[in-house]
Amino acid sequence: MSTASGPLSGITVIEIATMVAAPTSGMMLADFGATVIKVEPPEGDHSRHAGWFYKGESLWWPLLGRNKAAVTLNLKHPEGPELLLKMVEKADVLIENMRPGKLEALGLTPSVLFRRNQGLVLLRVTGWGQNGPYKDRPSFGTQAEAMSGFAYSNGQPGGPPTLPSFPLADGVAGYLGAFSIMAALWRRQQDPERRGQVIDLSLVEAIFGLFGPVASAYDKLGMIQECIGSRSPMGAPRNIYRSADGRWLAISCAAQQIALRAFAAIGRPELIDDPRYNTVDARLKNVDEVDAIVQDWIGRHTAEKVVERFTEVGATVAPVYSIADVCNDEHFKVRQMLTEAESGRMGPIRMQNVCPRLSDTPGSVRWAGRELGEDNESWYVETLGLSRDKFNCLRKEGAI
Amino acid sequence: MSTASGPLSGITVIEIATMVAAPTSGMMLADFGATVIKVEPPEGDHSRHAGWFYKGESLWWPLLGRNKAAVTLNLKHPEGPELLLKMVEKADVLIENMRPGKLEALGLTPSVLFRRNQGLVLLRVTGWGQNGPYKDRPSFGTQAEAMSGFAYSNGQPGGPPTLPSFPLADGVAGYLGAFSIMAALWRRQQDPERRGQVIDLSLVEAIFGLFGPVASAYDKLGMIQECIGSRSPMGAPRNIYRSADGRWLAISCAAQQIALRAFAAIGRPELIDDPRYNTVDARLKNVDEVDAIVQDWIGRHTAEKVVERFTEVGATVAPVYSIADVCNDEHFKVRQMLTEAESGRMGPIRMQNVCPRLSDTPGSVRWAGRELGEDNESWYVETLGLSRDKFNCLRKEGAI
Repeated sequence: MSTASGPLSGITVIEIATMVAAPTSGMMLADFGATVIKVEPPEGDHSRHAGWFYKGESLWWPLLGRNKAAVTLNLKHPEGPELLLKMVEKADVLIENMRPGKLEALGLTPSVLFRRNQGLVLLRVTGWGQNGPYKDRPSFGTQAEAMSGFAYSNGQPGGPPTLPSFPLADGVAGYLGAFSIMAALWRRQQDPERRGQVIDLSLVEAIFGLFGPVASAYDKLGMIQECIGSRSPMGAPRNIYRSADGRWLAISCAAQQIALRAFAAIGRPELIDDPRYNTVDARLKNVDEVDAIVQDWIGRHTAEKVVERFTEVGATVAPVYSIADVCNDEHFKVRQMLTEAESGRMGPIRMQNVCPRLSDTPGSVRWAGRELGEDNESWYVETLGLSRDKFNCLRKEGAI
Repeated sequence: MSTASGPLSGITVIEIATMVAAPTSGMMLADFGATVIKVEPPEGDHSRHAGWFYKGESLWWPLLGRNKAAVTLNLKHPEGPELLLKMVEKADVLIENMRPGKLEALGLTPSVLFRRNQGLVLLRVTGWGQNGPYKDRPSFGTQAEAMSGFAYSNGQPGGPPTLPSFPLADGVAGYLGAFSIMAALWRRQQDPERRGQVIDLSLVEAIFGLFGPVASAYDKLGMIQECIGSRSPMGAPRNIYRSADGRWLAISCAAQQIALRAFAAIGRPELIDDPRYNTVDARLKNVDEVDAIVQDWIGRHTAEKVVERFTEVGATVAPVYSIADVCNDEHFKVRQMLTEAESGRMGPIRMQNVCPRLSDTPGSVRWAGRELGEDNESWYVETLGLSRDKFNCLRKEGAI
């Protein structure tokens, strides 16, 4: 393993967790320089076997495993839990995502872990959290997307509720997990006894945190957000419109000033003084008319022209991009929003770059997810100090 | 201001930023105990004037302003920038979300800021980032949701692309901003010179980071994810189905084992050996048939029965909840996913609780967003040490 630079270099993380949420937390820390040991069962992490595939290999693993050391360990082998405890002694953070009670069933209760390393920060990621009536229910991000309220108000009016096509709740929880680990590590630094703690992160709460004052609005106004397509309860015009050349364009006007500019962009500045359209409330009440007026103008112009006009007057607009558009966009190229990482058998592979950018100690993508067990020897023998005989024996027994 | 507890107590943050992304970062830090000074123009932050409204007051402000001190400052007043610099001297973090160059136009370049406080961490949140051809384009979360590729693949097959009904890209960037601040502060602690740095966070990159290996799949496979409703490219059955009593239920089976259990739950365990359904690839190829089989069974049972059967066999299922369902759910009550905060004129107001839970130094919601300028005196006179005469004079001049 090459030595990492980046703001988190010096932090060591053990990740016994499968796709997608918890490994995203690990990836964030690794992107910014932490040493992250991805501990997989000897048959490999699930993200090595999840679609999409290229040459028989999953495209998830190069991304989720990037910048991590690849180490195997069979936690069900009699020596498994003790080997994990040896790792924990060397670590600042342990990330796990078993169902509540499963880690305990291996003898790895928080108190056992803290006895070996009282500074450990233990991130526990689950669908529903560590307690409560649903804690034992299996759950993936899909269930969090359904039960948080996301799906209910995502979709076209009158249509069915709609789930995202990618693991949204997982990713969001991953970001939040990385933050909470840093908060706990920060706290540890201030603590004279350098104590760690347990973080209880649920997918459903992580995504629910994004919805704004929906609970306040239900409580005070009885407001339940139904599917409203691409409209917003916050202002109008806000929708996706179709240009003369058949492209989709997204416009939003949360602020009065921006609505004024949007009306100016379509050559109708007088509308902002029309009592039907002169306030957010008025525009929301007459949203069908507002959308018709905007669509009419956009439908008579090319997407290029629409973007040009809106940009000229300082109104907001953006074309709806597919991943092909994203990959070919000049701005994103200049920003290096994408990068290429070396992955043994697949060759260089394109993926999201580190986000965000730190000016002095930026993160980096140093390698894509490695081969199964590639770092076993350096980790077990050089870092944990097992003898080579012991290492070979563990390997023979299927413990690693 | 009461003294905060929580893992981040002792950190001071100045927030000159409007809804929603950057203030979400500030809220996260405040939830976990940082002292966050929300600096608003004298007419008030935009989130005090954005819908939904209760008794004429925005429901956004109690949430986004929670746990923050409410201080006003007119940055366009001749003394404004110098007053901000005085604040910066007392701070660890400055959060801003002006368009690139606007902070500089006030004379507040990074180098001026660092000269006053070389330990400052400066989080800069924008739609498109600090450089590149689109940097001067105005942008809200909507544009990031359009141009990142989110909207393109969100929706029903053949239907229009669909934007989220809430500020998704903003919230996600907010989470990521909080993480990156902690990473930069951590780095500062390791630095003998205790230097801060600049963080360049764009909404579009923040949300793009959630999509998994879409760029890899486009690159290696030419794969462009179209709208597929609630299906997933990762496995089947994964969809929203309708029960006999007219409720929507979300099911997902990313892993083979879970698909087996789902087939068992609907009394068709033999399907997992059927060559049409025995692998992820086979099920994806025959996804219409898979969905029809699952829908048929679910359509003949009540939602309660479906949840019971799936849970019994360890398959994943969840009802699609509205905010009303969320607010009345027993599990979420036990988990305290919602809390109430005191907000002067609106009384106690329900909102999302702090997420996640830290076992030893949990965060807390201590108060909802305060009155405009409520903390001016304690901040300017007691903390910054301005004389009462100077304070009164600044007030009269409209500088604060």
